[in-house]
Parts: sequence; structure tokens; C-alpha cells
Amino acid sequence: MPRTLKITLSYDGTDFHGWQVQPGLPTIQGELERVLAEIESAAVPVTGSGRTDAGVHALGQVVSFDLQNPIPASNLRKAMNRLLPPAIRVLAAEEAVAGFHARRAAVAKTYEYRLWRAEICPPTVYRYVYHHPYPLDFAAMQAAAPMFEGTRDFRSLAGADDTREQDDLARPRTIFTSRLEPGPELARFLLRGNGFLRHMVRNLVGTLLEVGKGNIRPEEIAGILEAADRQKAGPTAPPQGLFLLHVEY
Amino acid sequence: MPRTLKITLSYDGTDFHGWQVQPGLPTIQGELERVLAEIESAAVPVTGSGRTDAGVHALGQVVSFDLQNPIPASNLRKAMNRLLPPAIRVLAAEEAVAGFHARRAAVAKTYEYRLWRAEICPPTVYRYVYHHPYPLDFAAMQAAAPMFEGTRDFRSLAGADDTREQDDLARPRTIFTSRLEPGPELARFLLRGNGFLRHMVRNLVGTLLEVGKGNIRPEEIAGILEAADRQKAGPTAPPQGLFLLHVEY
Repeated sequence: MPRTLKITLSYDGTDFHGWQVQPGLPTIQGELERVLAEIESAAVPVTGSGRTDAGVHALGQVVSFDLQNPIPASNLRKAMNRLLPPAIRVLAAEEAVAGFHARRAAVAKTYEYRLWRAEICPPTVYRYVYHHPYPLDFAAMQAAAPMFEGTRDFRSLAGADDTREQDDLARPRTIFTSRLEPGPELARFLLRGNGFLRHMVRNLVGTLLEVGKGNIRPEEIAGILEAADRQKAGPTAPPQGLFLLHVEY
Repeated sequence: MPRTLKITLSYDGTDFHGWQVQPGLPTIQGELERVLAEIESAAVPVTGSGRTDAGVHALGQVVSFDLQNPIPASNLRKAMNRLLPPAIRVLAAEEAVAGFHARRAAVAKTYEYRLWRAEICPPTVYRYVYHHPYPLDFAAMQAAAPMFEGTRDFRSLAGADDTREQDDLARPRTIFTSRLEPGPELARFLLRGNGFLRHMVRNLVGTLLEVGKGNIRPEEIAGILEAADRQKAGPTAPPQGLFLLHVEY
């Protein structure tokens, strides 16, 4: 009988074409499956809690897979880290109940989006922020942020290329926390919810930036969400500011 | 009459083949000269306070050059940052006295070397540390560090490929400060001196690591330096842990 493993992963998405396997291109899933195939001497398909876009980072992505190899979990962590590139690290590996599924079993995910506000973005920082050294009305953005909280159809924030069926896209999701923490150089936007459509976090941040620029008023957010129309919301914020912080089960 | 400019620079050395221009390869000097040629519409040779090796970073490298273009210094900073890759940033640009020479006028340089001690090196950190998750005797390393201070012939720590004449290599240099600051995850080694031979900081760190591994005793440092023989000291520590912090004039 195979065992089911659960691993917690950190990665720098800069040099990867996102999560999902793409032939001939480096991806996070592709690197994990390459390394596990080496350990298992057989193909090991892995499931992530969700896909991350090209350039998006993770501090606590969770991944599940089945393994025949009896290697203890802590040795598996070390073996994977020896074989993976330094931009991907297994922080923890543990036994899970048989059939544990990292995506279906997830009850909440937390994302952080980092905005660099100072004129100069340090060379050791630019891969991990959206550098936006222009004036923003942070009071309006802080007022607007909690207006995304609640349970609703979030199609206004869905990526145009989300290929799911309309009734799946329209299924209500809940945002538990949507909060902006301004800072003199680095502003952080925190989002915790039980489900996210493709590009939803980046589209939400893009909408919040439109509020900061004065193009959308905080009072308009409710109407934008009710319209369930992607055309009403702001553009997609760039990927390199986004981190998947952790996944709850 | 040309003006002499002094700029302070930060860079992430990961993706560059060091400081010095090499045909067909990205280098820090090459990027600066490319961008200044665009601004000046003529070749602008630049001088750094010193060369940094491939993979070495800088938080405060200083560079001098002459310019005919009357562009104000603060506009020059902005123009250069627009044209440079994000891994190189001009932090400050200022007028200097005519003929200011960033290397000859330097009276002291400070370097930091970063050692990552924890088992797992985070994906956002590995480019900026030497990951060394093995036991080290930090008490011995702390005792040994100040023994490099003083004025002497430092040929024991010179790179074998330093092409200067022997009498230039043998000329006494002074190390003002050589100090190790241990930490649970990150250990920092600080070095301030008035002149450095090629690879000298990395060779000094490599020697200190031999002390930490118990292969060299702190009392042996003085003899190693007196020998003026590269064979006596430790190996060259990897470049990615090294930062040029600042240059004094």
C-alpha cells in the first residue's frame, strides 16, 4: 500500500514558469516530480494546494503525493532538498492520512502582496516586490481593503483565462481577511480566504491600486463585485509581489 | 572641461561576471559604461573603488568618471536607474573635485561576509549567503578573527591569480577591524581595511572557516600571515556570501 505524504514548500518563483508542469520549461511541479521520480524510481504525480502563476513566490505551499518508498519523512525532506535547486526548499515533510489531497482538503489560504514605495528598489529586493514609487492614497486603500471580505460570487476578479465552467466560477467563495498594512518603504496587503479564482489575488490588488490612484472610490467596490463582470475591476497586478504564505487544513 | 562625478552603487552580483568589462559577458562595469555612453553619446570609462569577483554583491560600491553632459547629478541618478537592470541601482550621484579617482582616493573599505548556519537556506536568501549547515567552533573563530588586524604583508591571503608585481603584492596593507558576529541562523564577519589583494577577503574567511572546523588553531594565524605564502592559509570561500558595504574617502 502506498503512503500519502504532505510536504510544506518555500520557493522563489522568479526563474520558474509557475506551478504547473509544462514540457521543456522549468516549473515548481515539474521540479518536484523530477526529484520524486528519482527517489521512487517511478512516476510520482503531486498535487499542490493551488497553482501559482509564473513569478509568484511561496513561503508555505502544501503538496500531497503517494509514495511506495518507505523512506522516513525527515530523510525524504533532506533527500528532496539535496536534489532540488536552491530556489525550492522542502521545509517539512510528514505522513498524512491515506488519500489526503492538498487542494480539496484546504480550508483556508493566506496570501501577502508586497508593494515597494521608495524611489529606489534595492537589488536584493526587486524580485520580491512590485516597485511602485508613485503617490497612492493609502487612507482610501485601507478603507477599501475590508470591502472585499465576505461570501460572494467573485467573477469580477477572475482571470479571463480561467477555464472552469461558469457555475464553478460563480460558486461563492469567502474572503475572511482583506487588510492593507502601509509602511514608509514596504506596504503589505494580506488576504485570507477559502478559495480563489485564477489571478484573483492579483486582480484584487490591481483594483485596490486603482483606489489608491483615485480611479475607483472605496464605495464603488461593492458594486464592482456585484456586477460579476471582470471588465469592472482593475488590471492584474504583476506577479513578483505575491507570496502564498500558508495553507490551513 | 569635463566634470568628475562620484556615484554610490548597490548591486546583486548573482547574474554578473564580476566588476570588470569582459567582451560578450554581463559585468557591472560593462553595464555602467553602456548606460553612460547612452547618456553622454560618447564612451565614458569608469573607475570603481575596487573590482569585485563574479557573484560578489555591493551595498555601497563607489565609482568615478568624467562627463561632458551638464545633466544635474540627481537627474543623472534617475536616468542611470531607468537604463540599468534592476540588479544594479545608483543610490547617490554627486559632483566630485576634478580628477577624483574612486580607487586611488579610497582610504578604507568595509566588507561583510554572510554565513547561513541553519539546515535549510530560504529560497529568498541563498543568493546572498554561503550556506554552511555544519558544526563550527564559533568561540575559536571569534578568537581568531582579530588576529588578522594590523599592518603587514598579506601575501598569504592573495589570490594565486593576482597579477600584480611581487613588490606591489608585498606592500603592507592595514586591517583595522576583523570581527565575527555569530547568530543562530546568520553569522556575519566584518572586515575593514585600507587595501585588499585579489580574493583576500574570501581567503581570510576560508582560513577562519578552517579554524571553525578545528583544522587551524587561532594561535597559528600569526605564523600563517608571517609566512607570506598562499599555501599556508585556508581555501577561498564562495563569492555569494560577500558584500562590499562601503568605501571611505
